Amino acid sequence: MIRLSTAEPGFEGKFQALLDQARDTTAKVDAAVAALIAEVRAGGDNALLDITARFDRWTPGSAAALRVTEAEIEAARAACAPGLLDALDLAATRIERFHQAQLPRDVELADPLGLTLGLRWGPLDAVGIYVPGGKAAYPSSVLMNAIPARVAGVPRIAMCVPTPDGALNPLVLAAAHRAGVSEIFRLGGAQAVAAMAWGTASIAPVDRVVGPGNAYVAEAKRQVFGRVGIDSIAGPSEVVVLADASQNPALIAIDLLAQAEHDESAQAILITTSGQMANAVEHAVEEALKTLPRAAIAGESWCRHGAIIVVRDWEEGAALTDRLAPEHLEVMVAEPQALFARIRHAGAAFLGGHCPEALGDYVAGPNHVLPTGRTARFASGLSVFDFLKRTTWIAAERRGLEAIGPAAVALAGAEGLDAHARSVSMRLGQG
Amino acid sequence: MIRLSTAEPGFEGKFQALLDQARDTTAKVDAAVAALIAEVRAGGDNALLDITARFDRWTPGSAAALRVTEAEIEAARAACAPGLLDALDLAATRIERFHQAQLPRDVELADPLGLTLGLRWGPLDAVGIYVPGGKAAYPSSVLMNAIPARVAGVPRIAMCVPTPDGALNPLVLAAAHRAGVSEIFRLGGAQAVAAMAWGTASIAPVDRVVGPGNAYVAEAKRQVFGRVGIDSIAGPSEVVVLADASQNPALIAIDLLAQAEHDESAQAILITTSGQMANAVEHAVEEALKTLPRAAIAGESWCRHGAIIVVRDWEEGAALTDRLAPEHLEVMVAEPQALFARIRHAGAAFLGGHCPEALGDYVAGPNHVLPTGRTARFASGLSVFDFLKRTTWIAAERRGLEAIGPAAVALAGAEGLDAHARSVSMRLGQG
Repeated sequence: MIRLSTAEPGFEGKFQALLDQARDTTAKVDAAVAALIAEVRAGGDNALLDITARFDRWTPGSAAALRVTEAEIEAARAACAPGLLDALDLAATRIERFHQAQLPRDVELADPLGLTLGLRWGPLDAVGIYVPGGKAAYPSSVLMNAIPARVAGVPRIAMCVPTPDGALNPLVLAAAHRAGVSEIFRLGGAQAVAAMAWGTASIAPVDRVVGPGNAYVAEAKRQVFGRVGIDSIAGPSEVVVLADASQNPALIAIDLLAQAEHDESAQAILITTSGQMANAVEHAVEEALKTLPRAAIAGESWCRHGAIIVVRDWEEGAALTDRLAPEHLEVMVAEPQALFARIRHAGAAFLGGHCPEALGDYVAGPNHVLPTGRTARFASGLSVFDFLKRTTWIAAERRGLEAIGPAAVALAGAEGLDAHARSVSMRLGQG
Repeated sequence: MIRLSTAEPGFEGKFQALLDQARDTTAKVDAAVAALIAEVRAGGDNALLDITARFDRWTPGSAAALRVTEAEIEAARAACAPGLLDALDLAATRIERFHQAQLPRDVELADPLGLTLGLRWGPLDAVGIYVPGGKAAYPSSVLMNAIPARVAGVPRIAMCVPTPDGALNPLVLAAAHRAGVSEIFRLGGAQAVAAMAWGTASIAPVDRVVGPGNAYVAEAKRQVFGRVGIDSIAGPSEVVVLADASQNPALIAIDLLAQAEHDESAQAILITTSGQMANAVEHAVEEALKTLPRAAIAGESWCRHGAIIVVRDWEEGAALTDRLAPEHLEVMVAEPQALFARIRHAGAAFLGGHCPEALGDYVAGPNHVLPTGRTARFASGLSVFDFLKRTTWIAAERRGLEAIGPAAVALAGAEGLDAHARSVSMRLGQG
């Protein structure tokens, strides 16, 4: 953990070093992934069976066995604690409502010159969702990836989840069922991404593949990009907490550690106007680590990547936050909305003392799939927009063509595209 | 050119072959591009000067000489024919109006439980636009790339355009001036993309790089992706024309050739319900090629990739169009809106007999940067959305936390993320 103060000499250099600190430790697996994708494209279902037997310590009897049945889904739901199913349903209902509120409207612009211009939104035909298996099987991620697609109107949502040793997380199946996933396959890694992108006899291809995964999944998404759309490749997670002297240091500490417990390369940063708060939070983090089950991971993250920065005022604090462009931003100050209004770059913001990030990770409604590694400068969290595309259209009356056609002829001529010019001038009777 | 009919046996196989036909001939330049990017990151401005002298047969005296001056822009505008400047202004005004109509609104959702959820749109800080030089210098592309960024509210728009032998296209500078470009640099290729993504002493880094380019530019965009955002890598251009027997074959032919004249790997396809129209258009294309300045290129494209498909009805026609998911779609039938409503996948549509694609390429208002190679299934044309990003936010009152907090605690517990659970339960006084 590094302590910085804008009042100290040499701050800029140290802050820049913090910005440049490499946290992503993704292994290079290009060649291995290219081979797996080629194997799936050549061998189809049989390749999926072979690769699954090789990597998942589980041998499906047939391609049909890859598909999770309705009965299995029902059995999984029955195996979940009712309280958890209720929590899942509350989360799903709130996520649906927030994403419905995002749905854009078509544009139609009638024009005095005799043209009508339009922009039409439409859903993708089919989407594939990757869900990590084993310890990183997060039902909340199933909701966050599938519900925006469903709200966007995507008719077919396929999901792939690896089942190491054949084991499946019942709550993940329950979440998929609640979110409206159409098909679930026991399939993981690059082979799952390849199957969804290129299709096999038993898995129809999709138009976009989303969802988190390990280095193989991330590289596979890179390699199928263009054939299908993909979401952004997520890096290690991060939070910036802005806190003034009025806050409870123990709550700030646990919020920082909630980020740090994700993995060792996660990053938690406190920016505060109070040196006393900085000391109190540093102490509270040490205290909390003593009793935290995932203290090993969280402690490693805090030690390697954590930071506490004391600023002279919130103008400095806002400027540093924009340079960090954090995935998550907690604004725990007296006037959170006013400070948030001065910050341009963050994936998601959590305003006030009653709004820990975990509320948004699970049940509040906004998406928890967010831009990492300072990409919030130009990227956004997952939303209905990831599952919609636009078609623009132009309708012209004769007089519309006459009004603007000559300008098109002039510009086409200047660009040396004669057929372009003729396609207009011939209609104007000058062809 | 291939003639197909859905009534013939073996149609499906031939149509699938047409879909699978490889048109992209992009050279593999990964290593060369990686070396250029590394050279720019290491050498900064000096590297830019060296590389420019090496590739552009032009040696800038200093880094300052890379920047186009106000005086040069003024001189360029003075050198343009007034009629062309008027055409440029008409186009810019219409493009501005259509993109303004796309601007999304923020979402704020107050919640009876005591939470407020929001989605805030904001512009990127800085955007870089790549503009090809030499023969492919298209002023229209400058408008189509820069105006959406300006309308989105991006304060800084940098533009790079190579100047082989030092030559600059005056109309390109005039277009940049009209579109509100902030800075113009005489810089091309991978070195320009690297400079915009990583920055040098004289070129500040941007957050997103857009614009068409050759294989080096496309690969450079791939390699800087993640550090900055990029637009989609454009492949060869294509058009599908839907025409019934009521249309003028000579106009359909010139529209097909307007697409074909872009380059040899462009694709123009006619789908018609009339065998007679198919014959008439095939003949009219041959006739038009006799007098077309770019007949060599257009003829090659038509011969290699052109197609005329006769369908039994528009239900078939619409289904085939969705499988082609063309960049451009002309709907030249009696009821164009009705047929367009049945088609899901196209980048941009041009409805009716008075609306050649060239109208949209230059002056109508919608963007001409569109998804190619069947990616219209999931991708969209350039728009204000490419220059905006979203930040979602959550504000919770105490009673809001009490209402949904327990569900977050339950789900965090199920996912084994104890600090997440504690960050909520401690606030509920159960920590």
